[in-house]
Amino acid sequence: MELLSVPDVPEVREGDDLAALVDARFDLAPEDVVVVASTVVSKAEGRVADLADYPAGPRAREIADRLADLTGEEKDPRFAQAVLEESTELLMEAPFLLTETRFGHVGVNAGIDRSNVPTGDVLLLPKRPDESAARIRERLEHQNPVVVTDTSGRPFRHGQTGVAIGYAGMPASRDYRGETDRDGHELEVTVQCVVDELAAAANLVSGEADAGTPVTVVRDWDFGDLEGSENLYRSVDGDFVRQALRGWEYDE
Amino acid sequence: MELLSVPDVPEVREGDDLAALVDARFDLAPEDVVVVASTVVSKAEGRVADLADYPAGPRAREIADRLADLTGEEKDPRFAQAVLEESTELLMEAPFLLTETRFGHVGVNAGIDRSNVPTGDVLLLPKRPDESAARIRERLEHQNPVVVTDTSGRPFRHGQTGVAIGYAGMPASRDYRGETDRDGHELEVTVQCVVDELAAAANLVSGEADAGTPVTVVRDWDFGDLEGSENLYRSVDGDFVRQALRGWEYDE
Ligand SMILES: Nc1nc2c(ncn2[C@@H]2O[C@H](COP(=O)(O)OP(=O)(O)O)[C@@H](O)[C@H]2O)c(=O)[nH]1
Ligand SMILES: Nc1nc2c(ncn2[C@@H]2O[C@H](COP(=O)(O)OP(=O)(O)O)[C@@H](O)[C@H]2O)c(=O)[nH]1
Ligand SMILES: [Mn+2]
Ligand SMILES: [Mn+2]
Ligand SMILES: [Mn+2]
Ligand SMILES: [Mn+2]
Repeated sequence: MELLSVPDVPEVREGDDLAALVDARFDLAPEDVVVVASTVVSKAEGRVADLADYPAGPRAREIADRLADLTGEEKDPRFAQAVLEESTELLMEAPFLLTETRFGHVGVNAGIDRSNVPTGDVLLLPKRPDESAARIRERLEHQNPVVVTDTSGRPFRHGQTGVAIGYAGMPASRDYRGETDRDGHELEVTVQCVVDELAAAANLVSGEADAGTPVTVVRDWDFGDLEGSENLYRSVDGDFVRQALRGWEYDE
Repeated sequence: MELLSVPDVPEVREGDDLAALVDARFDLAPEDVVVVASTVVSKAEGRVADLADYPAGPRAREIADRLADLTGEEKDPRFAQAVLEESTELLMEAPFLLTETRFGHVGVNAGIDRSNVPTGDVLLLPKRPDESAARIRERLEHQNPVVVTDTSGRPFRHGQTGVAIGYAGMPASRDYRGETDRDGHELEVTVQCVVDELAAAANLVSGEADAGTPVTVVRDWDFGDLEGSENLYRSVDGDFVRQALRGWEYDE
């Protein structure tokens, strides 16, 4: 398996055709998987916004005041407003905002970025990353599988990694249930989330700062002869951590 | 960046020298990173056990009884005993066991596996995976960086991925704090856990079942000219999910 950066990607602007942009710079083989950082998907989709677009309501002001009290730093209530508008559930409001975004991803600040945004104050995640992936895929010469990624923190473990937030043209996971191990024993629950692993792998080469390499091609990797599974996010009734957070309050 | 499986690895047995086993089968370049599935590290370290080694105490029996009530399936209290003995904190006891293992990793059943174990009932995680990685590294011809992995579930997201549980010869993370983005803005908190990303990438090629490819070589990947950061696990006082779980009870 090989990971290759698509070279010479320019600054992406609203309306850009990412598929054409990739096809023009990279000779994709039909089996290659194309992994795209959500930043450039958001830019192409015009998901840049100014804080002035988010006049803060009472809830956003309450959140920002509390965060300001806690951290001793001024917090812009319009940013809290943007996070709330991008979210379908608020899981933590202090000491930082953790929410479910409109498409199911749980992340800090609803994944709203303030870096790598030249034309506005903030960059929102794509509205429906699965649909973004499908649109890019459709326009690629070979309709390659596409994974859209973001950099995300996670409980228990230090630091962030690349994760998938949308995908098209392949299943999210390999479903090993019913398969056997080296000794012929049936595996217990094993659903391997390969789109997250592809996102993590691509992040190793795309980097976080000014590398300018938002598109990574995965070559000579094979999903294999296994059942596919489609879920990227846990259902709430199987997500006990999420349930625990609902009953929890940050203790100042 | 390229990922290559070390070919023809035999069934690993207690006392095997994994470094010699790799060097004999693969011509490592000095900059290659060697990613090893914990299963084979555990086998080499003799971390195979029988349930008879874990006579269940009252706490293990209480846990097993409760799980049996919940699931309607018989649960062996000796397995619960093994999990407790491998753990330093019990974060969830129902509907499954989530614990902190002796070295800081939070995982289901303390990472104890019942697949790919021909010589006993269960396979425990290596006792100190950082030390395991360092021992393998020391004996490799070029003292390559080594990452020891396990397959692990995670909150919020469906399925499992490869994660690092130990490493040697490189930092755990790239620390981007103080670096700037494409527009010259300073990045906010960005610590990229590259050992987890290497583990995830390797899992794409090593697989979960009977592939027989526990060692993956990462070639032409560069940590880069960034500060390193050493923590793989969150400290408890910055891990609000962990704190929330302490106050939570599974509602039958
Ligand atoms: N060429 C190019 N690279 C970009 C652009 N925007 C971001 N990047 C690069 O894409 C990669 C990922 O950027 P990041 O801000 O971490 O994206 P995220 O993880 O999706 O939030 C980095 O290498 C950035 O330098 C762009 O418009 N053009
Ligand atoms: N050659 C060889 N492969 C093994 C051995 N034990 C496990 N594997 C393979 O190593 C890979 C990872 O195994 P898995 O049980 O998922 O390990 P874990 O993720 O570390 O718990 C799979 O490809 C297994 O087939 C062994 O003793 N020898
Ligand atoms: Mn982002
Ligand atoms: Mn990123
Ligand atoms: Mn395991
Ligand atoms: Mn595994």
